[in-house]
Amino acid sequence: MKKLINDPQDVTSEAVAGFVAAHSDIVTQLDGLVVARVGGAVQGKVGVISGGGSGHEPLHAGFVGVGMLDAAVPGAMFTSPTPDPILEATRAADGGAGVLHIVKNYTGDVLNFETAAELADAEDIEVATIIVNDDVAVEDSLYTAGRRGVAGTVLVEKIAGAAAERGDSLAGVLSIAERVNANVRSMGVALTACTVPHAGKPSFELGEDEIEIGIGIHGEPGRHRIPIASANEITDMLLDPVVEDLGLAAGEKVLLLVNGMGGTPASELSIVYLHARQRLEAMGAEVARSLVGNYVTSLEMQGASVTVLRLDDELTELYDAPVRTAALRWGL
Amino acid sequence: MKKLINDPQDVTSEAVAGFVAAHSDIVTQLDGLVVARVGGAVQGKVGVISGGGSGHEPLHAGFVGVGMLDAAVPGAMFTSPTPDPILEATRAADGGAGVLHIVKNYTGDVLNFETAAELADAEDIEVATIIVNDDVAVEDSLYTAGRRGVAGTVLVEKIAGAAAERGDSLAGVLSIAERVNANVRSMGVALTACTVPHAGKPSFELGEDEIEIGIGIHGEPGRHRIPIASANEITDMLLDPVVEDLGLAAGEKVLLLVNGMGGTPASELSIVYLHARQRLEAMGAEVARSLVGNYVTSLEMQGASVTVLRLDDELTELYDAPVRTAALRWGL
Repeated sequence: MKKLINDPQDVTSEAVAGFVAAHSDIVTQLDGLVVARVGGAVQGKVGVISGGGSGHEPLHAGFVGVGMLDAAVPGAMFTSPTPDPILEATRAADGGAGVLHIVKNYTGDVLNFETAAELADAEDIEVATIIVNDDVAVEDSLYTAGRRGVAGTVLVEKIAGAAAERGDSLAGVLSIAERVNANVRSMGVALTACTVPHAGKPSFELGEDEIEIGIGIHGEPGRHRIPIASANEITDMLLDPVVEDLGLAAGEKVLLLVNGMGGTPASELSIVYLHARQRLEAMGAEVARSLVGNYVTSLEMQGASVTVLRLDDELTELYDAPVRTAALRWGL
Repeated sequence: MKKLINDPQDVTSEAVAGFVAAHSDIVTQLDGLVVARVGGAVQGKVGVISGGGSGHEPLHAGFVGVGMLDAAVPGAMFTSPTPDPILEATRAADGGAGVLHIVKNYTGDVLNFETAAELADAEDIEVATIIVNDDVAVEDSLYTAGRRGVAGTVLVEKIAGAAAERGDSLAGVLSIAERVNANVRSMGVALTACTVPHAGKPSFELGEDEIEIGIGIHGEPGRHRIPIASANEITDMLLDPVVEDLGLAAGEKVLLLVNGMGGTPASELSIVYLHARQRLEAMGAEVARSLVGNYVTSLEMQGASVTVLRLDDELTELYDAPVRTAALRWGL
């Protein structure tokens, strides 16, 4: 295993400390590795937090800041954070108007956020929860009952964060988050596996010319393995199930997100984006907004996912709202 | 070779087309794959352009926009662009106040930018040139006489671009660019090689547990190969020559850039950053600004480089100035 790490046990704590030191104008570190917005909770604003296993950076700490998350809870590598730091983040985000928990649909995450929400309730902090489950690849999976939450999570965080920033109530922010989740679908592909530092060997094995369509962000099995194909063919295999499940109709506006899994050259993401965009346009959809880059990764995995979000005017306006985080920033 | 590509011959043209389509609010595509700032040259402003072989994305097209580059010239993969598109970019950037060419020190780039500058001169466009040579690893290299230009280029582009944006003359912008280049040093490490699509096999071979200290961004040989060591030890091997060559003294302010080579998990970059920062602080330097991420890559290579820029008040102010590009954005 060749990695730029020290003791495998220290990867997450060192990575979080380095991240916070590099972005100290935007974030600060609390107990339990919690990363919170500089300046603390904004009084009267709904707090928005998320969290999950590490190894998917910039998710979630990279999205803490003005206009997105108030705090993020990094668990150990590919491991759900425990209820205590989630409670810590909930407290840090609470400005008296309640806190939204944005939770990717993995059983451990769902249970631990639920426990933290109960603990917060005992402290009179009102919590609402959105479970993100945008991955159309498989129903039920290694760590999940129902569909997995993947790259669509970034769009839930951006848009719900903007709704909170403009002053929506907890019920209002939850409703926006639910609308994003209801209108977003994703599917991914792996060209290579990744290695969790404390495991020391790849999470799964792929043949020399083999790729996995429908991969999960922890290397969970997808739909099938096939020999490497062209970028356009692979993009079709990701986009078609997304579009079908979304029931996309001609004339609709969408946001197209092509997400890198961590080890994919930027040029390849642009190639996937180009074809996905052309396909969507050929279907009569308008690609009104775009994001291309590493947003929800699986360590050094090579591969990509394609996410389509059906936009309406309000979601577009919230997406466009100013944001100032380490990994997503405009207008501020 | 597993890559998200179609015909290897089309990688650069498809990647550029996809990049421009995804960022059409910021950039537009001209002949010869030239990527230019939307809206064309700004009258009375010094134009700033750069270019070089593809495969280092987001360099350079990712830095085209307000406050940085007016145009970028992507060559074929790891191959210098020819004089014609460089001339095209020079014309596109010319607002009547002259154009600065920012050129990484590789022999092909230097020659082709020089020819383009002569052609521009024949069209009465005044051109000044800065050759960036921040890599302290080796003197002379596979494609270079003298030191190579690597990640420090991003800082030259940001700061010279800001000087042009505030209205400096061509001589003024050149002088700022020279000051950045004189005060920036870098060194990199490769954990894995990368594969150029049309070559179809890795550019070089590294053993299972072997890394190369001082690697070039095309896989050119560095200083030596060693067995994998801890992140802290490797960071020291990169930082020490940088600091020594820079003649850094206690009390100085610096910008610390930890750059990913394309296939490195974000968490590992944060770990390298943390140690480099702590070392600089222990030397009495103040890490006043930081950048951590993939800025000058080598396709899917795993590895990182450490760059230190000595700051003064003016360079800091220009670095902080608003910028709106695909890969670097704040304040706009």
